[in-house]
Amino acid sequence: MTVDAVVSALRATLGERGVLTTPEDRARFETGWRYGKGTACCIARPASTAEVATVLRVCGEHGVRVVPQGANTGLVASSTPDASGTMVVLSLERLNRTIELDVAGRTVLVDGGVLLSQLNQELARHGFWFPVDLGADPQLGGMVATNTGGTRLLRYGDVRHNLLGVEVVLGDGRVLTQLNRLRKNNTGLDAKHLFVGTTGVFGVVTRAVLQVAPLPKQRSVALVACRDGDAVLALLTALEADLGDVLSAFEVMSANAVAAVLAHQPNLRRPFAELPRYAVLVELSSTLPADTLVLDAVLEARLGAFLETAGDAVLDVLVGKGDEFWQIRHHISESLRSEGKMLAFDISVPRSALPAFTADVERLLARDWPAVRLCDYGHWGDGGTHLNLVWNEATIGRAAAEVIAALQPSIYELAVRGYAGSYSAEHGVGPHNQRYYDLYTDPLVKQFCALLGGFCDPQDRLGTVRLE
Amino acid sequence: MTVDAVVSALRATLGERGVLTTPEDRARFETGWRYGKGTACCIARPASTAEVATVLRVCGEHGVRVVPQGANTGLVASSTPDASGTMVVLSLERLNRTIELDVAGRTVLVDGGVLLSQLNQELARHGFWFPVDLGADPQLGGMVATNTGGTRLLRYGDVRHNLLGVEVVLGDGRVLTQLNRLRKNNTGLDAKHLFVGTTGVFGVVTRAVLQVAPLPKQRSVALVACRDGDAVLALLTALEADLGDVLSAFEVMSANAVAAVLAHQPNLRRPFAELPRYAVLVELSSTLPADTLVLDAVLEARLGAFLETAGDAVLDVLVGKGDEFWQIRHHISESLRSEGKMLAFDISVPRSALPAFTADVERLLARDWPAVRLCDYGHWGDGGTHLNLVWNEATIGRAAAEVIAALQPSIYELAVRGYAGSYSAEHGVGPHNQRYYDLYTDPLVKQFCALLGGFCDPQDRLGTVRLE
Repeated sequence: MTVDAVVSALRATLGERGVLTTPEDRARFETGWRYGKGTACCIARPASTAEVATVLRVCGEHGVRVVPQGANTGLVASSTPDASGTMVVLSLERLNRTIELDVAGRTVLVDGGVLLSQLNQELARHGFWFPVDLGADPQLGGMVATNTGGTRLLRYGDVRHNLLGVEVVLGDGRVLTQLNRLRKNNTGLDAKHLFVGTTGVFGVVTRAVLQVAPLPKQRSVALVACRDGDAVLALLTALEADLGDVLSAFEVMSANAVAAVLAHQPNLRRPFAELPRYAVLVELSSTLPADTLVLDAVLEARLGAFLETAGDAVLDVLVGKGDEFWQIRHHISESLRSEGKMLAFDISVPRSALPAFTADVERLLARDWPAVRLCDYGHWGDGGTHLNLVWNEATIGRAAAEVIAALQPSIYELAVRGYAGSYSAEHGVGPHNQRYYDLYTDPLVKQFCALLGGFCDPQDRLGTVRLE
Repeated sequence: MTVDAVVSALRATLGERGVLTTPEDRARFETGWRYGKGTACCIARPASTAEVATVLRVCGEHGVRVVPQGANTGLVASSTPDASGTMVVLSLERLNRTIELDVAGRTVLVDGGVLLSQLNQELARHGFWFPVDLGADPQLGGMVATNTGGTRLLRYGDVRHNLLGVEVVLGDGRVLTQLNRLRKNNTGLDAKHLFVGTTGVFGVVTRAVLQVAPLPKQRSVALVACRDGDAVLALLTALEADLGDVLSAFEVMSANAVAAVLAHQPNLRRPFAELPRYAVLVELSSTLPADTLVLDAVLEARLGAFLETAGDAVLDVLVGKGDEFWQIRHHISESLRSEGKMLAFDISVPRSALPAFTADVERLLARDWPAVRLCDYGHWGDGGTHLNLVWNEATIGRAAAEVIAALQPSIYELAVRGYAGSYSAEHGVGPHNQRYYDLYTDPLVKQFCALLGGFCDPQDRLGTVRLE
């Protein structure tokens, strides 16, 4: 039988520890952190680049599909196996020893299986951090493959912006080594970009060279109550003009989103007596020491001046209590889940279009689904909006699947075709949004992917999403 | 005859103004700003994306090669025709009308033929700039195709880091439109990267969407006299830890380079009585207004403190006179040319390796070419060094070509193989460094290029460099 044969062949090279087969051992690899669940034939845990290549060759010979897996924290189910019980999960968790920091170069070479927290712990000892800042604790290889973004993208960019080099094992076991530690290397095609955001379908990222950033010495946070989306944009434009160098987060939370947090997190205090349409979390941070610049004072003064000129577009400003404000922001997702049925989105549109796009969604709901609540929040500085919808199944009298089937495609259509936006701003592509990839991807881009896939993974053994 | 036939066919669609054929009209397209010279059969000047596609189709039908050309300011001869008189230069200069700024989005859509100066003039009216800062005045499409860097890369990144979307006409006339204005769009292969830095061999960049930056409100410049390369790196590390948010240039100039400037630019003042091994130009700039932060004071205090702890590694610090210091920096290249024969380099190595690499070059020269002077300077913050060599032909008693043939390959070999560096840090690839591309490019990367070239430009009509 194929399963037995592939397990034996993998054991022969990876040893006992390198291959897990029992349901108990497989369990944590088969279920994603939040989404995704399936059954694998086994878990292969190579501990070196050469072993990763062997796993891919062995699986190719046995005609078995392979799911590369980092910390399994993705949100589109791309790192979990399907239900067939025939796929091999290739976990990078044992490829996690190298963290080689070059202090004067301000770069670090890491194994693909190193956790973000593990890297940041090491970097902090030298006054650095890797500033792609997420709610989860992914592995660096997975972060490259999914090009994660996060709440400080506005300031530091996504993984791609901080990536100098990669080592990738292609689908058929060949190894592409481009472990440059160079900030400037302008010599034709920069091949690493083929493996960023393509979810491991062309190859498995086994090592990466990253640029790291000096740790900020101070932070200052405010919460600004805005009347509407236009006021939010005016605030963003004003802040960037003066404080662009030190603005590190600009997170927007609707009244419905904040109300859900307050309802489900009794230990969190209500920030405003009356919740505004949008509460904006503004964070400044800087490497500059406090004897040169006091961020709290700068933020307070700038927001005070803005409040005076903004008329009733800005209702209130609270400076300080950064932890409390971030707590509210970080609890939105789980609080909304507790409210009832939820349909989550990870949309982006040009950020100047966020108010108009959101208003269109509100009109659509008011007309066709008045009992569905819009609880939007997100990274407006980057044009991102988690436009989550919440409803009570009993009130609405229809199955959740029916509501989702009606609303999801029309909101994506509005975002992508109506506002030149994206159906996946930062979560990447996977089985959960494959149909929207198929629908919205330029045919020429699919042809590029078919070409690259045919070259990198000629037997088509790798990954859970189809890009061609 | 082919030339007549292709000119007639191009005239039929582009009109009289769209095709230049006389030697006088062709001259400025046939000679590069600094390097590159050839003879074209004609100059095609399409004024729209559709016309660019037509030019490529017509040339394909007539079996004629095409050289895409921006402002012809490149330094590797990739935008000038060869000597055959059979190539068509495809100039983008008439595709220069669109500069569509989205203020709240902080993005701009530009035609490929728009000049950097033209864009920055328009942006300045709204408090923005495009911060890829160069000595030349290139077109934006050319900047994408060659992924230009410049003196502020340390702070703002290269073109790639600021590029959101592109429109490209492939070699056979198909149009790929990816004019996203999105900062977050994580939906598989980001195909624009195939056309960044690949010098137009896969397609011609006709439009681009760029992220722009708020204009700084203040700048402060200092010149620091360092004993050696290790002192330069210590200074860089100290500055980034505290002033990383506002450090916008870190340019290093050897005593030999500064001496050449002083010898040939009599109006420039000698900054230090005794020229140090390295004079470092440090620039801070910030969007923060002067009532929150005074950069001059911050820079003076920080450098003063560094001077106290650095012992005799740092010899002197001059703050202010930014224009004078930048003048010295900007005159190095031409001053060295006036010194005698010159061999120029555009090398990068991991920046922590710059002192060791430079010392190795010095030893190599001392041993084999004692009459050749090392006049190095460059963007040490990015690991870049223009390691220019200067000599007097009479003293050395050999033809310049002979010296170059001996030194160029061995210094590239030392940089690329000895120090994991690059033979082209920011100038890109073109006929001038084709042989080093061939020598140092990973065979797998060449195979990717062959694959992409076969798809984008199946008749192989485009460009002056071969990437496969």
